[in-house]
Amino acid sequence: MNRAALESAPWIELQRLVKTVDNERVTRFLEELSPLEVARCVSRLGDADRVRLFSMLEPDHAATVAEQIPDVQAANAIGNLEPGVAAAILEEMPTADRADLLGDVEEPIAEAILGEMDSRQAEATRTLREYPGDVAGGLMTLEYLAYPETNTVGDVLSDLRKHAQARRDYVVQYAFVTTDRGRLVGVLRLRDLLFARMSTPLRSLMIEAPLSLYELAPLDEVRACFDSHNLHGVPVVNSTGRLVGMIRRAAVSEALAERGQAAFLKTQGIVGGEELRTMPVFQRSRRRLAWLSVNILLNILAASVIAFYQDILTAVIALAVFLPIISDMSGCSGNQAVAVSMRELSLGLVRPSEVGRVWLKELAVGWINGVALGVLIATVAWLWQGTPLLGMVVGSAMMLNTVVAVSIGGTVPLLLRRWGLDPALASGPILTTVTDMCGFFLLLSMAAALLSTS
Amino acid sequence: MNRAALESAPWIELQRLVKTVDNERVTRFLEELSPLEVARCVSRLGDADRVRLFSMLEPDHAATVAEQIPDVQAANAIGNLEPGVAAAILEEMPTADRADLLGDVEEPIAEAILGEMDSRQAEATRTLREYPGDVAGGLMTLEYLAYPETNTVGDVLSDLRKHAQARRDYVVQYAFVTTDRGRLVGVLRLRDLLFARMSTPLRSLMIEAPLSLYELAPLDEVRACFDSHNLHGVPVVNSTGRLVGMIRRAAVSEALAERGQAAFLKTQGIVGGEELRTMPVFQRSRRRLAWLSVNILLNILAASVIAFYQDILTAVIALAVFLPIISDMSGCSGNQAVAVSMRELSLGLVRPSEVGRVWLKELAVGWINGVALGVLIATVAWLWQGTPLLGMVVGSAMMLNTVVAVSIGGTVPLLLRRWGLDPALASGPILTTVTDMCGFFLLLSMAAALLSTS
Repeated sequence: MNRAALESAPWIELQRLVKTVDNERVTRFLEELSPLEVARCVSRLGDADRVRLFSMLEPDHAATVAEQIPDVQAANAIGNLEPGVAAAILEEMPTADRADLLGDVEEPIAEAILGEMDSRQAEATRTLREYPGDVAGGLMTLEYLAYPETNTVGDVLSDLRKHAQARRDYVVQYAFVTTDRGRLVGVLRLRDLLFARMSTPLRSLMIEAPLSLYELAPLDEVRACFDSHNLHGVPVVNSTGRLVGMIRRAAVSEALAERGQAAFLKTQGIVGGEELRTMPVFQRSRRRLAWLSVNILLNILAASVIAFYQDILTAVIALAVFLPIISDMSGCSGNQAVAVSMRELSLGLVRPSEVGRVWLKELAVGWINGVALGVLIATVAWLWQGTPLLGMVVGSAMMLNTVVAVSIGGTVPLLLRRWGLDPALASGPILTTVTDMCGFFLLLSMAAALLSTS
Repeated sequence: MNRAALESAPWIELQRLVKTVDNERVTRFLEELSPLEVARCVSRLGDADRVRLFSMLEPDHAATVAEQIPDVQAANAIGNLEPGVAAAILEEMPTADRADLLGDVEEPIAEAILGEMDSRQAEATRTLREYPGDVAGGLMTLEYLAYPETNTVGDVLSDLRKHAQARRDYVVQYAFVTTDRGRLVGVLRLRDLLFARMSTPLRSLMIEAPLSLYELAPLDEVRACFDSHNLHGVPVVNSTGRLVGMIRRAAVSEALAERGQAAFLKTQGIVGGEELRTMPVFQRSRRRLAWLSVNILLNILAASVIAFYQDILTAVIALAVFLPIISDMSGCSGNQAVAVSMRELSLGLVRPSEVGRVWLKELAVGWINGVALGVLIATVAWLWQGTPLLGMVVGSAMMLNTVVAVSIGGTVPLLLRRWGLDPALASGPILTTVTDMCGFFLLLSMAAALLSTS
């Protein structure tokens, strides 16, 4: 790419515009870009420029841009704005999105921003922030319609008319009906209002004893509920049956997508939050290195097994070729088992306590694949060195270690989950370390034993 | 777990009940389980038992169960039922879900089932099946409301009243307004109907020139559109502006979650579709082995580099300890870069053509981390063997190969995407093979060079 092309790139242009104080030109420039281009350009600005950009835009426009860029960048920008400016932007977002964003902002700054907000909105945001992100309460929205059972159709219609603007983005598929103490007693299809008489009490129009979710129900239970009912939203109640919010189907899918992404990044060694290449190089390097440092120590531990067998290695130097092969292939076999276990856990198809069942299922696959890979590598070793004995040793080690690898790979995620640890984070390092040690030991000790008898 | 506990487990009980011909008892049994337990029990049945179960339940109940279990099992069961029975179950699902399920059924069987369906529903399903799954058309639903612009509010209300039952699950947040040729010209908030006069023409109530998505817009563009507009549904049009469907926000999140899951499974070596431990052992083994066979060949290729340096290995047997460490650590460093690239690609933050930009960003991190890891491993080697020279060789090889690993890891996903290949599938094997070869070569050739000069 030549210099002229670089300078005409939209993010370079945006960078230039942000340095001016021409709010209108910046606004127009962003409005002419496609949503994907907005995300790309804004995410490539430096942190300071992004803060400046947010302060140049109208609050509702800034809120839109904040939803388009990665959460970590949006939270950083919000946290570095004047609290009053940040509050104005956040007020333009649905409560759930606002609570999510503020969750990534440092506590005292978040409190300062909440202090600048409309007190009812601040209160609602604080309520949502108290729930963990992976239970019903953390997924729910506070933008829904609820009316006391003593209301009539006419009351609802006049409320809707009065607050038409404020409630324009509400999910109005349903309205919920509560007692005067707030306990959920029914659900109303909004469409049914169209055909009812003004004086009809809600009590006689509503569907009674509606489906609801407990505020602390875990994400998997929420997902299962939406899988089995073709609903767009489900009400959430607390332990006394009081209506506290509503979950939209989209919020559940979004949470599942995010959980999947986080697990993917962690298994690949991106730990401690998302990394973007626009972040400062030392921050990226430090976070990656923290993970690598643990791994290199585990690696040294595993490879130290080799050091005990230097004599047999010197005698049969060809073994050195097969050490990395056994290490890599055990990693591959074990990772397949890890993936299946993590998938089955996340679908709720297996309980963390069913270690025995999973192990038996893996053993079958492990023996078949172990024999296949063992025979293959034994043949290669035999043909290469012309010694059937080398082939036998290498093949046996590969076979046995494949069984070890799938056993560990299949069961470790369940055990970690049972102990309250994160399978995405720890399964890989544990798998690699144990199978490496075991593989090196099997190969070298068998070779040593055979050499001493022959 | 003892035998008694096993036999009282709900899936054992379900297995027993399915063998009877007592449809009512099976139905009652499933109705009493939580959604998560239904998923677990039904997914553990044998394939034949699952088919039998589906034929025992009422069509709407069977449709619910089908949505609760993994897609691959639902499709298998649907494909093995009598076409008439399968059609009755599918008719109870939203068109989009039905099209997805039939997409996993063999073509002639799917056609036979469609032939048994209500002809309008079959037609709608065929239309949806023609779109790839990752464009707007493949994500849309056909359950939405649309009226000609010449209609009045009264016309809409009487249509809603007449078809109340059939349209109970529609997203009625909005209704779309079209010309008599079907071109999208406006969108109507259903709530606005509540306050309008019966004789008002839709033309004067609708919001004109509404936001819409082109039927072939890719998933990432669809996502960006929903990120920038706080909407629950967006209409989809074809190239002539004709309204062809609507996308719900939840469908977009679901597609993203599925894409993420598929990528995760592929990077971990589960290729060719989801694996469940309830599948037959030979099927599971065969699929895993197909992937492992490719990897073992690549591994042998990479390790063959070691064979060329047997002399130096015999002379300095301690090098054998460091070969697997360099191989594993390069894999770790490279996988981090792969994860960041795949994440940035999926967020649209980087274009596949920006290989140069990504490489520069990775080089910086690679050098820092390479130096850190190199110094660490050099110290270990020096302390262990008491030879600073060994430390220098091992440390330099680790440092250089870390740079190689992040360069390959960062850029290969972009290149694969540019060539139309799947980064999730191929990045890992390419990374491991190249960095292994390069790492073995660096360590052993440097050692050989130093040995011959000293």
